[in-house]
Amino acid sequence: MAPRTRKDARRAEIVRAALEAIAERGYRGASLASVAERVGLTQQGLLHYFPTKDDLLVAVLAERDQWDSAPGSGWRADLLAALVEYNVMRPGVVQTFSALLGESVTEDHPARPYFTLRYTRVRAEMARSLRGEYGERLPSGLTPEQAAPLLVAVMDGLQYQWLLDPEAVDMAEAFRAFLTLLGTEPRTGS
Amino acid sequence: MAPRTRKDARRAEIVRAALEAIAERGYRGASLASVAERVGLTQQGLLHYFPTKDDLLVAVLAERDQWDSAPGSGWRADLLAALVEYNVMRPGVVQTFSALLGESVTEDHPARPYFTLRYTRVRAEMARSLRGEYGERLPSGLTPEQAAPLLVAVMDGLQYQWLLDPEAVDMAEAFRAFLTLLGTEPRTGS
Repeated sequence: MAPRTRKDARRAEIVRAALEAIAERGYRGASLASVAERVGLTQQGLLHYFPTKDDLLVAVLAERDQWDSAPGSGWRADLLAALVEYNVMRPGVVQTFSALLGESVTEDHPARPYFTLRYTRVRAEMARSLRGEYGERLPSGLTPEQAAPLLVAVMDGLQYQWLLDPEAVDMAEAFRAFLTLLGTEPRTGS
Repeated sequence: MAPRTRKDARRAEIVRAALEAIAERGYRGASLASVAERVGLTQQGLLHYFPTKDDLLVAVLAERDQWDSAPGSGWRADLLAALVEYNVMRPGVVQTFSALLGESVTEDHPARPYFTLRYTRVRAEMARSLRGEYGERLPSGLTPEQAAPLLVAVMDGLQYQWLLDPEAVDMAEAFRAFLTLLGTEPRTGS
């Protein structure tokens, strides 16, 4: 590999290790030393790739943005059920995200601006997508702006219940039940 | 005060300081030293009241159980809107809870058994309350067992969005919109 490519591959490996470390201990609980150890580097060696812990967090959050759904899909409501089904197959990724979201509400957390901006954008894109499909009212009577934060809340909230007790909570089934409430999916059964 | 009462008062003061420390830094990020400092004790002095950090966490979680709603209300659906409205007035308490919930999904977290058990119990009590009021189907067509995890998810999920951006997210209004979806509250407006 060319030096550039080798460095990029190494960076990607470090980001993956950081994702695992955050899933295990949260961001504040994860040490650079433990990330370095996972990839067989000294802490000094790690700083060559990421000069500070916050630099590594920026890379983790950029990686996190790749998880959401098809790029440019604009948070289409009809793709969300598929996203939740996909998330059931990758509990580690959901765990990293849920741990970071939980921490982000503590004081001066470096991920707080990221999550604040992310939710502003996701709510707006969902509302736009719902308006394009249903106009000013969803079949349930809610406006797109009322439905968007609820869609986000149900996805996030179910993840915590599911991570804590995967046998008891069927996240995909529960999310589909919510979509039938919203009226964005044909109701099944009676 | 009698020594017993004085000790209880001191313990309560320490628990309050721990709640604040968790809101600021999470449980893993909060040090016993920082809690001791808040109440004017040495770390050694603090250990007289709580021998380990986990002992302090147990007391914090017991305190947390007092926040939910009227004791013995059994998570009645018709009281949940009032609970959410109350939570809007105590962002610090919501922040402590949300930070702890987020952390609880990381590996071997000492609060994980507490939250797992809590959600099992809350979902069951909500379902029982909904069945008592509506029978096997809510007005929206969902079963009580389908509605309960969604109620929990919406409450938890909205708290994160609200803590991150209280100006943009009206938690109480959004929760009422969800109740109209469920059909557990008369729909207002059109």
